[in-house]
Amino acid sequence: MASRLIEGNAIIGQSGGPTAVINQSLVGIIEGLRGYKPVKKIFGMRHGVDGLIKHMPLVDLGALSTETLEKIAKTPSACLGSSRSKPTEADAPKIFEACKANDIRYFFYIGGNDSSDTCRIIHEMGVKTGYELRCFHVPKTVDNDLMGNDHTPGFGSAARYVAMAFMADDRDNASLPGIKINVVMGRNAGFLTAASALARHGEGDGPHLIYLPEVPFDVDRFIEDVKGVVGKYNRCQIAVSEGIKDKEGKDIAASLISGAQTDAHGNAQLSGSGALGDMLSNLIKERFKSPSGKPPRVRADTLGYLQRCWPEPSPVDAAEARGVGIKAATEAMNGLTDGSVAIIRMSNHPYRVEKRVLKLSDVAAKTRVMPPEFINGTHDVSRAFIEYCKPLVGELPHFAPRL
Amino acid sequence: MASRLIEGNAIIGQSGGPTAVINQSLVGIIEGLRGYKPVKKIFGMRHGVDGLIKHMPLVDLGALSTETLEKIAKTPSACLGSSRSKPTEADAPKIFEACKANDIRYFFYIGGNDSSDTCRIIHEMGVKTGYELRCFHVPKTVDNDLMGNDHTPGFGSAARYVAMAFMADDRDNASLPGIKINVVMGRNAGFLTAASALARHGEGDGPHLIYLPEVPFDVDRFIEDVKGVVGKYNRCQIAVSEGIKDKEGKDIAASLISGAQTDAHGNAQLSGSGALGDMLSNLIKERFKSPSGKPPRVRADTLGYLQRCWPEPSPVDAAEARGVGIKAATEAMNGLTDGSVAIIRMSNHPYRVEKRVLKLSDVAAKTRVMPPEFINGTHDVSRAFIEYCKPLVGELPHFAPRL
Repeated sequence: MASRLIEGNAIIGQSGGPTAVINQSLVGIIEGLRGYKPVKKIFGMRHGVDGLIKHMPLVDLGALSTETLEKIAKTPSACLGSSRSKPTEADAPKIFEACKANDIRYFFYIGGNDSSDTCRIIHEMGVKTGYELRCFHVPKTVDNDLMGNDHTPGFGSAARYVAMAFMADDRDNASLPGIKINVVMGRNAGFLTAASALARHGEGDGPHLIYLPEVPFDVDRFIEDVKGVVGKYNRCQIAVSEGIKDKEGKDIAASLISGAQTDAHGNAQLSGSGALGDMLSNLIKERFKSPSGKPPRVRADTLGYLQRCWPEPSPVDAAEARGVGIKAATEAMNGLTDGSVAIIRMSNHPYRVEKRVLKLSDVAAKTRVMPPEFINGTHDVSRAFIEYCKPLVGELPHFAPRL
Repeated sequence: MASRLIEGNAIIGQSGGPTAVINQSLVGIIEGLRGYKPVKKIFGMRHGVDGLIKHMPLVDLGALSTETLEKIAKTPSACLGSSRSKPTEADAPKIFEACKANDIRYFFYIGGNDSSDTCRIIHEMGVKTGYELRCFHVPKTVDNDLMGNDHTPGFGSAARYVAMAFMADDRDNASLPGIKINVVMGRNAGFLTAASALARHGEGDGPHLIYLPEVPFDVDRFIEDVKGVVGKYNRCQIAVSEGIKDKEGKDIAASLISGAQTDAHGNAQLSGSGALGDMLSNLIKERFKSPSGKPPRVRADTLGYLQRCWPEPSPVDAAEARGVGIKAATEAMNGLTDGSVAIIRMSNHPYRVEKRVLKLSDVAAKTRVMPPEFINGTHDVSRAFIEYCKPLVGELPHFAPRL
């Protein structure tokens, strides 16, 4: 419910794995807040709520020129610094006290579902203690796994990178035929791996096989799948999610990374290692070996952190990331006390979206995965997924037809 | 020496690891040959000389429209297919006979130093047997390792990708501080790894450490180097060539890749595996471990095949790749009988190059490495290298200053 604006300062933080457009959202919030009299200062927290807990100096974002802000918007990765830590019960009062000490009345947190949960906790502390603190969650994640969102800022740019990578790599593979595995980011949701399908433009184009975390991965079926494609095209390009799980639901990559590191959320490291690709590569080399012949040419690349920071974002994604920031600021100024901004698709042809504010608890600490209608069998995505994903990545390069 | 043109057909092949601009050279040759009456047909060989040896059907390149050719020019990776095989002594007569059978009088081969050697062998067979066959080598290689060349088409685009990757990844690393290793292509020459230095624009920017194949890699010194950077910046971004060698000169990566595959040139697989990055990552985790504390956050990415095929090439590189193709065709039409086209830099401010024709034997089967004046100590490049490399990659994105 709308209510009168209290005078005070605003603070903005960035959390979780950064994206190519997370700074667009930061600049969007600043843009949306400027000109409102009750907002005295606009601060940035360093490394998310960690900066508040550890009393790191605040950044005076309100003092930055429009020119600097536009440069920041186009720079990938969280310019305020990000954080992987999950605030403990003991941390929440510290964050809240730091806000009070700095006369913060407007709290904006750009991040994934854990960030929405942080907003929820901080907002509830304010309500309980009678200190008005408006808290807004601004969505970002390359994984595209936030509940209630058609899609999430950051995903489109990562999907664009993945689609372009598969397009180019498929031509590389066709020129020197062999079996090529590309491992794609995504712990539980396969959206980003699925985006590799946008690389297909003609008959024979890869990826020929797509393995998602939503479908249990079976080694024997995998080998049969690859043999089938090689029999047909004399080569095979494969998209594999780093989050593929065995039939018991265990992360296959986590068990392969020597000394895998675990974050505060209990998530074992999946990225930043080539172990999964190398394991699958070795598996193919072994299983394809015939007593006489040598194994086929097999290579594995892990697309890695460039998926989330490549500095040429999807234009649609960049604009939407700015837009969710503006929306959060505007709704706060219109009198809303808390919420999580979400993008809702109104139509696909032409592509049109609206930004709405959801309840924090509807997004907090929940994970969305690929719906069944986006998955086609055990190793592909559906036409519906491609229709869904296409408008988010912008125009892709036009390659020549194969000679 | 110039001589009268013989009527007949031309053939073009592509060999070795493809690049983002190798098709620019193909189109350049076709463009350069068109309109010359003695050239009846322009054929393409599939998968380099392999296609001739195995009597694969030729591609009628002369029949392609200008529109199609322009699309091909902008498509990465060898559109005719490439080859990794090195023609044996028994193969050379087969290649030569296939040329005679197809009335080929003009032979163009786009590739690295081995391709220059193939041209030399085929040309000499023609001279010996009195069948005039003009043979031209058109340079390409992301490794930038051809003798007599200031630089090689393909390198600039790969260097652009590497520089952009390090720029973006460095911001990612700054937002979630840790130790980040990025493994870069290059068997013996460190040019591409060195190009990571172009990512530096301000104090504290990575890469903080650069390890080249030209400088023996010492594990203990590496750990000390990383500790020094972490002490200063609380993080560290590292560029490592896949071709780093131990003090005995042995490839470190080749010994780590399980079931590493070897090509016809006897080169053991270095790319298409994350093994080197993972080994260095584990090494840091172990050596940084203190009895009390946990190891720092360490991640490794291997930039992989996207370095050579990312579909947004350096504009300078694309234009030069076209230019060396045109030059080869024009010189053949001017009456030269054989040679290897090379780019020579005439001035750096303003950047200006000339294309010249070298003797095939001056380029054939030789490898250029980073000259000592481009290397700075054990883990960096010199200012001279940066001045050399900058004009080749085109304008890089402008990131915001750090907050």
